[in-house]
Amino acid sequence: MNISLEANERLDYLLAENLRIIQSSEVFSFSLDAVLLAQFASIPYRKTGKIIDLCTGNGVIPLLLSARSQAHIWGIELQPRLASMAKRSVAYNHLDEQLTIIEGNVIGIEEIIGTELYDTVTCNPPYFIHHPHSEKNISEHYAIARHEIELNLEQAIQAASRLLKQGGKAVFVHRPGRLADFMEWMPKYRLEPKRIRFVHPKEGKEANILLIEAIKDGKRDLKIEPPLTVYTEEGEYRQEVREWLYGK
Amino acid sequence: MNISLEANERLDYLLAENLRIIQSSEVFSFSLDAVLLAQFASIPYRKTGKIIDLCTGNGVIPLLLSARSQAHIWGIELQPRLASMAKRSVAYNHLDEQLTIIEGNVIGIEEIIGTELYDTVTCNPPYFIHHPHSEKNISEHYAIARHEIELNLEQAIQAASRLLKQGGKAVFVHRPGRLADFMEWMPKYRLEPKRIRFVHPKEGKEANILLIEAIKDGKRDLKIEPPLTVYTEEGEYRQEVREWLYGK
Repeated sequence: MNISLEANERLDYLLAENLRIIQSSEVFSFSLDAVLLAQFASIPYRKTGKIIDLCTGNGVIPLLLSARSQAHIWGIELQPRLASMAKRSVAYNHLDEQLTIIEGNVIGIEEIIGTELYDTVTCNPPYFIHHPHSEKNISEHYAIARHEIELNLEQAIQAASRLLKQGGKAVFVHRPGRLADFMEWMPKYRLEPKRIRFVHPKEGKEANILLIEAIKDGKRDLKIEPPLTVYTEEGEYRQEVREWLYGK
Repeated sequence: MNISLEANERLDYLLAENLRIIQSSEVFSFSLDAVLLAQFASIPYRKTGKIIDLCTGNGVIPLLLSARSQAHIWGIELQPRLASMAKRSVAYNHLDEQLTIIEGNVIGIEEIIGTELYDTVTCNPPYFIHHPHSEKNISEHYAIARHEIELNLEQAIQAASRLLKQGGKAVFVHRPGRLADFMEWMPKYRLEPKRIRFVHPKEGKEANILLIEAIKDGKRDLKIEPPLTVYTEEGEYRQEVREWLYGK
């Protein structure tokens, strides 16, 4: 199939040979965090289900979710260059019927694509609080994807809430240090945290990734799932994680 | 040494042969949760340090902490029968100079023993929300120790905050389902959560115990420590936990 790769882009494998994804080390490449979020999220399987991924980047989460569900999946990305990568990956994988990439701002997106309609909203938001003088990643693309320049966490949570129908699920990945913010802002926007999983790089190490799922208008009842450890003592991916990254 | 045991009381070992504690299966016996809290808490070692344990029951936490610190340790217990057990255990172990058990209500205790004086406040509070018609443990002693009848979680957090000096530490053990409440109420009373450890009964199981430490007037920066697993696959205490319970 024809696919136009721009300068510095490459076509990487996703889930072994099943999917391909356009990446660029200078512009954007997906992280383990996105893979863990795609695995953690509760999503509908049925064809009439509706899933939406905010801050979709090069579309890695919609692509991964398409292997787990027949639901329609939207991906929202502000940056034209990244949205273009995501759109071309969708086309390359012949997933145009199931996946829709929208270039646009998460803030106010519900006015365009509809409120209280979606079963699951996933989001791997920018992690770092924006300080005007903090040292940013050299690439502006990375800076916007990683720092709360165009979207902060509270705005992402609010957007997720507006998109979700009652009983729908908001699923985020972030740093554990932001747990207090999730616990404050999720209930503020009618999202009740229900499942948390902490990810530890190795056994005996502090968690470095937080996975959290909330239910819109759910009742307070939070479960802390078994911890996930990413690497073995020898620094290899553990079996489970390797399969999520490279397929079985 | 002379010690008067009341009906149904027994004198149990604590930390192997080093300490003894009065218990009663009909009135009160300590739980693993208290042992984990005593192990988790950051406490001063120095003789001038001040530690206070709220809802001390039969005094298990002050007794365990006395093995880790030379600081003075107070224990507050509302129920006369339990406070009496705690006082007699202190006397039996010749710890009267280091440990002081006070029979009294946690609510307002700072007016009696002083505000903003303490380095660490520990608390293993009643776990269950009080519903007038819920089935209570048959013994009234257990009911008060386990249900939020005389003290609810928000009141315990508020009391801890009033007792602590700036930079002092509030350390609680509770059920993970109450995490959202801690994250809401601790900051409300100037306590910033800094360390959390989840305890899982076995590998691959959800957490069933939450350990949380906050610093008075601390800045937001939360660490999720490595998870603690209590039992081996065969249902035996893991080495680490066995040592905390029975000593090395």
